[in-house]
This record gives sequence, structure tokens and C-alpha cells, in this order.
Amino acid sequence: MNEFELIQAYFSTLASKGTGRGVELGIGDDCAILNPPADSQLVVSTDTLIAGVHFPQSTSAFDIGFKSLAVNLSDLAAMGANPLWFTLCITLPDRNTQWIEGLCDGMAELIQQTGIQLVGGDTTKGPLSISIHVTGAVPIGQALKRSGARVGDDVYVSGVIGHGAAGLKMALSRVTTPDDSRLDKRQLDALHRFNRPQPRIELGVALRGIATSCIDVSDGLFADLQHVLSASGVGACLALVSISVSEAVIASTLFSDMSEREKRLLACNAGDDYELCFTASESQRGSVAVLAAEQALVISRIGRVVEGASIVEEGSGAELVGLGYQHF
Amino acid sequence: MNEFELIQAYFSTLASKGTGRGVELGIGDDCAILNPPADSQLVVSTDTLIAGVHFPQSTSAFDIGFKSLAVNLSDLAAMGANPLWFTLCITLPDRNTQWIEGLCDGMAELIQQTGIQLVGGDTTKGPLSISIHVTGAVPIGQALKRSGARVGDDVYVSGVIGHGAAGLKMALSRVTTPDDSRLDKRQLDALHRFNRPQPRIELGVALRGIATSCIDVSDGLFADLQHVLSASGVGACLALVSISVSEAVIASTLFSDMSEREKRLLACNAGDDYELCFTASESQRGSVAVLAAEQALVISRIGRVVEGASIVEEGSGAELVGLGYQHF
Repeated sequence: MNEFELIQAYFSTLASKGTGRGVELGIGDDCAILNPPADSQLVVSTDTLIAGVHFPQSTSAFDIGFKSLAVNLSDLAAMGANPLWFTLCITLPDRNTQWIEGLCDGMAELIQQTGIQLVGGDTTKGPLSISIHVTGAVPIGQALKRSGARVGDDVYVSGVIGHGAAGLKMALSRVTTPDDSRLDKRQLDALHRFNRPQPRIELGVALRGIATSCIDVSDGLFADLQHVLSASGVGACLALVSISVSEAVIASTLFSDMSEREKRLLACNAGDDYELCFTASESQRGSVAVLAAEQALVISRIGRVVEGASIVEEGSGAELVGLGYQHF
Repeated sequence: MNEFELIQAYFSTLASKGTGRGVELGIGDDCAILNPPADSQLVVSTDTLIAGVHFPQSTSAFDIGFKSLAVNLSDLAAMGANPLWFTLCITLPDRNTQWIEGLCDGMAELIQQTGIQLVGGDTTKGPLSISIHVTGAVPIGQALKRSGARVGDDVYVSGVIGHGAAGLKMALSRVTTPDDSRLDKRQLDALHRFNRPQPRIELGVALRGIATSCIDVSDGLFADLQHVLSASGVGACLALVSISVSEAVIASTLFSDMSEREKRLLACNAGDDYELCFTASESQRGSVAVLAAEQALVISRIGRVVEGASIVEEGSGAELVGLGYQHF
């Protein structure tokens, strides 16, 4: 099976699972031809995932497929966008069709959930790497940017922080001990969420007109919030205890040598959570509560926007530094 | 210098060189925010270039930057599109700033030529690889597809075929003998065109309303024409001698063990030429001639579209098989 047959067999099938919003011509020509939706702006983002860097070498093909699309969809969520199209550049060490099938199955799950359609790509040979480019749409002027946080706004984060930290620790130890039977329910849950993060598309869309700024938590809550603060020219004051931290970090045996405070800081400095961190004016507290109930999602109010440039802790005033992941 | 500073220093500068058509928010948020042009369709394509596969390891940073953007722009050209935006995923083995500067300079040359703007990207650590996603625009319904060739149409190719074949041979021998003084003018010209292929954007735009189908010559003239024929459900009859083949293939010492016919076949089966191969009805011969003169470009009429499914040679009727590059 050559490259073209490979693309035909797997990626065309994958493309057929999308809803095809605005797709006049998909895979198979030099370019796809796309009709942008009326009265909308497009938002685009791209992310590369590399084996051994963004996911442990032991990760299943399904989880790699799921996660590589999820992290890109998460960027659309952070803008409040509806997903439209994506392209997939995949570099493979060999043409293991079973592996490719697994990868496609992982992506298909999110395609069916969000309707996003595969419209193009490139398949090359080399060390495993996946680059995805996503396009979404927002009504004109309604995209959620990093730069809109204002002094006095509340700071929120969705879901639970720290599944990424706990999941990574378990995934790495799995390389040497591939036996999940020793893991308790909390740990298995965190590992699942680490491998298959749920992009908060519906939340992002619902936050249009409510949030003043938004970002997805990929590098770590503190590091990502710091991006918002820098773009907005403000600081933030957070109450560490108001952040919902994963039980796999707090209560399981994974980090038993740490104090609870250290565990909370670890969770907020680890990445891979793909929750949304956003700011909204105090007058929106009711709307945020309604939204959380409607989406059956924990949304924690974790602090407020203040003058300054950094993140400080409520009470002590100690600086909470977000380092994030450093590639170099 | 960390990843963010690296992006700030080089890629933001690179982004500032584009013309910013429709860019409301460029690099620096979770997504770029883009305004699609009115009355247009978008065309998108993506290509990955890997060191040692798509360019010899000895290739300069400038040439890698130039070529990786050029091959993507070439896909826009093949659709008759005007370039708008691109994103850049780059995986680097280290943070060699001089190398990155060279890469950016190579891309900047094509940005200044075409106005395309960098609007996002991702920088990761690993074996050198570059994935670019390009977006262009065409007036609604005017994109040049592969599927429009009709029996009786003429088949054309722009420029000269075979610079890719000759350039690759020289580039590979350069690895062991990095001395260009032995190369004659024809050879140096082919090497230059191999490293810095000129995407035929203006030609593609001018072919709207003239060409019935179009493709860019990346995998080899025969292989790419075969894609057009398969998409259109037709065959082609070509006169080998009417194809303008690079003097570096025909007359230089590079392939001295081959007959002229073998050299012509080699040129048409090698890739990396990035010329446009298109079909047009006989009634357009005058328009194509005017266009060639206006753009000071050789455009060769190399045969015609016939019933069938393959490429045959005029006179002998022998099948001319296009193999193209096989990744696996």
C-alpha cells in the first residue's frame, strides 16, 4: 500500500465522518475549497505533538489520535469558536496500518462529537510526529481574547486541575510497569483524562459575551493565566484553596512525599489539563453559575484581577510563579 | 532564550513582513482571528518537509525556509488562488539562533513577493521538520481543480522540467564534494531552482477562466498529470519532444550515461519542479500565448486530452507511466 492508497483508505474515511460545514471540495486536490460562514470571523491555530515529548512513547494510537486533535480543539474553545475544519500532517516511522487505524479511531471520536471535518493533510516518513491545523468560526467581534481582563474582574477555571500532572506521572511509570491494576479509581480517572482531555468547546461558545478574556490550560494554570495577565496589562490575586485540584494529586499515593500546599502548586504548574481559565466582571457571577449548572461542569471562581503584572496569593501576597513547559 | 522569546524575536518579525490582508489578530493568542475576503472561497493546503527526505541535510537554512514556504505556495498557485495567511510548525533539534535567522530570511523573501502573512505556529524540539499550512482566496466558483480536463483540451506545462532532477543529483553529490566551482552555468542554475523553486502564483491567478484543470508539478510531471487524468476520467497523449527539459539534464555532464530519450523520461518522472501543468480548450491557445508573453514565461503545449485513463506517447502510443515519489 503506497502513500496515496494509505490516505485513500484511512484518511478519506476519517474525512467522511465530519459534518462538512462549508466544505465544497475536501481531500484529493492540491487544496481543499471552503466556504467561510457568513457574518463570521475565522480563528485558526496549529499544534505539533511529538512522541516522547507531548506523549510518552507507550501511549496507544487511539489516545495519540484523540489527544492531538483535542489539544487543537482546545485552542478553538479558548476563543469561543465553533470548530469547522482541520488538516493533519503526520510523520510515521513505518506504514503500520493497525496503528493508523487506531489513530483514526481516536480522532473519529472527537470528529463525531464536534463535527469538525478533515479537509487535507500530508503523510511523510520519519520519527513519529503529528501537526494539526484547526479552523473555527466566531460571530464577528465575539472572539474571546487574552487581552480583555480588567481590574476587578473575577478569575475562573473550569473543571479540575492536576489530572495532567497525575496522568503524566502514571503514564511515565507505565513504561517500566505496564500494570494498571495497582491504580485506584481516582488514578485511573486522571490517567484517562490525561490521555483523552475533553476540549471545552461548548463552554467556550457559551462564554461569548460573558468572559472578558480566556485561555486554555495547556502549559499550566499559572503559566497560562500569566499570558492573559501580560496581554491585558494586569495582575491577579488567587486563593489557592479555591482551585479544584485532582484527587489523584491530593489524596492518592502518587505524590505522598509532598505537603498539600506543594501538591496544589504542582497541579497549577503542570500542564495538559485543557480546561478554560477566564475572567468575567462581577456582574456575570449569576450567568456563570447558570452556565456551570447547564453544562454540569465545575467552574471555580479562584480569585480576581488586580493592578500589577503577576499572580499573587490571597492573604500572604506571595508571588505564584508560572513556569510552564520549556522546550529549549 | 526560551521558546516564547524565540518566537517573539524571530517569528513576530517574520509575521510583520506580510501585508496583513484580513488579519485582525495575528501571533500571540490561542488562535489568530481572520476576516475572510468577501465573495471568495478559501483554499487551504499543508505540506511537511523533513531533513534528509525533502531536502538534503546539507541544505542551507535560507534555502530550507524558502523551499518549505514555496512548495506550499505552489499548491495555492495550482488552484489559481491569491495567498493570504500561513502557519508554521517547526521542530528543531536545538535553538541555533543563526540557523533560525537564516530560515526566516528565506521565508521573508517569498513573504515580500506574495504578501502572505504568518499568523500562527508552534515550535517544538526534535528532529528537524517543518509543516506549513497555507490559506488563499479565489473568487467564488473560480478555483482550478484537477477534475475539469475534457477530451480535446490541450495539455500545457509552464517553465522548464528537470531542474528538480538535476538539482537533487548535484545537491546530493555536494554532501561529499561541497565544491560548486566544478559546476557549469546550466548546472548552477538548476541547483538554484531546485533550492528556491518559484511558486507560479501569478500564472495560477491568470489561468482562472482559461484552464479547465491544473496541478503543480511536485511529484513529477507524469505522476502529477496522471492525478489530473484520474480526477477527470480521461487520458492524455503527449509529444515528449515538446516538453522543455532543463539543459542541466539534457546537455550537461550530469547524466552523460543516458540517451536523450532517457534523460527526458527522467526529467518527467522526477519531482520538485513546482511548475504548473494545466489543460485548456483549443479556443484558449491565443489567451495562453498572450499570458506567456505578459509573464515572460515559457509555456509549452505538450499534448492533448484523449479518451482513456493513462498517458500515451504521440506516434508510438507507448504508455508513459508516472511513478512519483513513494514515501513508504
